Amino acid sequence: MNAVAWSKEELVAADSEFVIHSWSKQGGLNARPIKGAEGSWFWDYDGNRFLDFQSQLVNSNLGHQHPKLVQAIKDQADTMCYIGPGFAEEQRARLAQKLAEITPGDLKMSFFTTGGAAANENAIRLARHVTGRNKIVARYRSYHGATAGAIALTGDPRRWHAEPSMPGVVRMLDPYTYRCPAGHPSPCPVCSGGPHLEEILQFEDPYSVAAVILEPVTGTNGLIYPGENYLRSIREVCNKYGIILIFDEVMAGFGRTGELFACDHWGVTPDILITAKGLNSGYVPLGAMTVSSKISDWLQDNKFWGGLTYAGHPLACASAVASLEIMEEEGVVDNARRQGERLGAGLAELAKRHPSIGDIRGRGLFYGLELVRNRDTREPLVPFNAVGEAAKPMQEINKAAMAKGLYLASNFNVLRLTPPLVINDEEIDLALETLDEVLDIADVHYDTAGGPAS
Amino acid sequence: MNAVAWSKEELVAADSEFVIHSWSKQGGLNARPIKGAEGSWFWDYDGNRFLDFQSQLVNSNLGHQHPKLVQAIKDQADTMCYIGPGFAEEQRARLAQKLAEITPGDLKMSFFTTGGAAANENAIRLARHVTGRNKIVARYRSYHGATAGAIALTGDPRRWHAEPSMPGVVRMLDPYTYRCPAGHPSPCPVCSGGPHLEEILQFEDPYSVAAVILEPVTGTNGLIYPGENYLRSIREVCNKYGIILIFDEVMAGFGRTGELFACDHWGVTPDILITAKGLNSGYVPLGAMTVSSKISDWLQDNKFWGGLTYAGHPLACASAVASLEIMEEEGVVDNARRQGERLGAGLAELAKRHPSIGDIRGRGLFYGLELVRNRDTREPLVPFNAVGEAAKPMQEINKAAMAKGLYLASNFNVLRLTPPLVINDEEIDLALETLDEVLDIADVHYDTAGGPAS
Repeated sequence: MNAVAWSKEELVAADSEFVIHSWSKQGGLNARPIKGAEGSWFWDYDGNRFLDFQSQLVNSNLGHQHPKLVQAIKDQADTMCYIGPGFAEEQRARLAQKLAEITPGDLKMSFFTTGGAAANENAIRLARHVTGRNKIVARYRSYHGATAGAIALTGDPRRWHAEPSMPGVVRMLDPYTYRCPAGHPSPCPVCSGGPHLEEILQFEDPYSVAAVILEPVTGTNGLIYPGENYLRSIREVCNKYGIILIFDEVMAGFGRTGELFACDHWGVTPDILITAKGLNSGYVPLGAMTVSSKISDWLQDNKFWGGLTYAGHPLACASAVASLEIMEEEGVVDNARRQGERLGAGLAELAKRHPSIGDIRGRGLFYGLELVRNRDTREPLVPFNAVGEAAKPMQEINKAAMAKGLYLASNFNVLRLTPPLVINDEEIDLALETLDEVLDIADVHYDTAGGPAS
Repeated sequence: MNAVAWSKEELVAADSEFVIHSWSKQGGLNARPIKGAEGSWFWDYDGNRFLDFQSQLVNSNLGHQHPKLVQAIKDQADTMCYIGPGFAEEQRARLAQKLAEITPGDLKMSFFTTGGAAANENAIRLARHVTGRNKIVARYRSYHGATAGAIALTGDPRRWHAEPSMPGVVRMLDPYTYRCPAGHPSPCPVCSGGPHLEEILQFEDPYSVAAVILEPVTGTNGLIYPGENYLRSIREVCNKYGIILIFDEVMAGFGRTGELFACDHWGVTPDILITAKGLNSGYVPLGAMTVSSKISDWLQDNKFWGGLTYAGHPLACASAVASLEIMEEEGVVDNARRQGERLGAGLAELAKRHPSIGDIRGRGLFYGLELVRNRDTREPLVPFNAVGEAAKPMQEINKAAMAKGLYLASNFNVLRLTPPLVINDEEIDLALETLDEVLDIADVHYDTAGGPAS
């Protein structure tokens, strides 16, 4: 429509009066008004430009306003924005076929939702129907979405505010070797996966468990990479008891870790793969559940008990088809791997100067920087689920970075470094320079009494 | 992208091999391939054209490919497809401001999801936080979505396949006067709302109930219209005990019933209004939760515990802003009311010729035709939750209509007549002609032994 664009003041007034923003008190929120975005950058109404080192919510993998992706959306808008999920439609079928080609192993049929949460919800319901069992094993350091089923799977404290939620979820611990819950003997039964899962199943009845769901690389909750044999040993335990293995690759999928899918690093295939975000860079809301050939066969004769008005939305599917073409044409996964190496090398250099860097975890462009008050004690810069005064050091780092034009995210004491996969050398270097400056804020809190920076 | 369009055969092959369709066995599904859509019509690859008397899933209120709506999507695609929910963005704020203007009473701030299910999930979670209570009262003949919280609210048998789901839901019966569960004395305590709710609250502890959620006009589950005082009496009981009243107008909202919102018919305002579908005719996935000034005030100092990557998606919000402008410019609500009168008059005529029409319920373009085997006994043409052979008579009607170019929907024994709100006289008349033909199929099953058609 041809309405005159709002001024900054009009926008700020309407936003603060009428828009409810996620996970926040609305009073005094002062959401920054954003006027535009392109590539790895976005800018506000005062001309401040920001290097998007978060890819927003780890979704803008192809950067902002990729011209071919925008064109694909416009073309599909001209063709057919919507048709009901009961019909066959070209973009929906193209996307499903393409996912069958590029996802690992024998993953075959796909169901499309409007995001990761609903895709996870469908996965666990389907797993329950396929197995005839009810329990789901999920991990503590995890986020799977905010609807009642997805938040029940979630370990993140945001779950606390949605309880009681869907019953039947059993929890296991994480391969968080930097702070190993078992004190980290070698080999650690928790961090190596299978033995820990086996122990939990012993107490839960393995034949009552429908599925294990996990992020192959944990996203928001710490950027945790599993050890070499972790996923394989989990896969073996699932096979042993006929448990369906679900990988939530909503963040890690589509090149984020420098492979097309995170599980490709370890050659392990789930029975159900969940994706969203990088699937189409979030240009149109979309999520996907892709299931094994075995489950696809099961679905031939058994009803799929899921659905939503916008399942397989043509505009969304068209954007994902285009996004996957762009990824191939532009070698986006290779770029993620190459720039990830550049970023990793730069962070290793920063660690020499900044004792507050306790751990660097990452591959591709999916990095976490764990900040500590002492490298020997590993005391976190801010505690788990820190709020108020306790959370300030991390907030100050993010704020200082933003003031210098670098958009960062953090969760508790872990800085999340997840730029668009189309980022270039200069932008990586620019981010490293800014990080070098703002990490001084963390260093101030460093406690040399606990031992020297090693 | 410039890929060559698929042939019908290519599409059908890929769809049947790779796409999981909602609420279905995938084997032998043979989803009809759809090539295009415009206005109230869509067509397949063989040149068959269908009058969309469902508005797909009761969402294509402005019809297919409305040129102004398509243009608004293309314009926003060129401007900014996506920016994270933490920022202020013009289309998001415009939509929220507009909803505050046009929604009833003092409804004020909005949170945007990607559909109705997630919006309902957020509403109940918020209601629990605002009240500090846990229980939710919902109705049996209802559908609120398929995620674990939304399906727990749902009464529809699709819920059975998702149980156990979110706990805390208590059920009440419906103002289904045609088949009154209390035998329909006058005034009936169930059908009049408040007394029935009061009785349930007596057994549940009214001060443990956070919210009552209902569709002011029941959609899929029977197109049930409440009596004149129903919503008002429910509102009064909620006020008495400090219970939050949530109206799910995902289907009924935005002109569908001939008023902008269904609750406008009775001048009753909820504390939380849930919308989707007609909000933007589903051109981009979108849902909204709009809350009262009182809850908006509460949110200033209390954290909103909800969020999703695509909350307040700019492309989706832009399409809704344009959709609301189009509705005003083109007098869409007036057209829905006028065409609804034409449809209603035509259906009354059909009832004279077709004894199988047991009840006609509707306003605007939100009509249900309840088919029976006998008007006196009111035996339904097919039973509740009919499957297999028992469901056939209704399936045959839908199939025969489709063969004649009329796309209809039904639930159990109720035909749903919900065309686009932009439909014209000729199209209404065409649908009535086809209905006249296919209702003969129902009449064949009419049992005159139960008494004559009155």
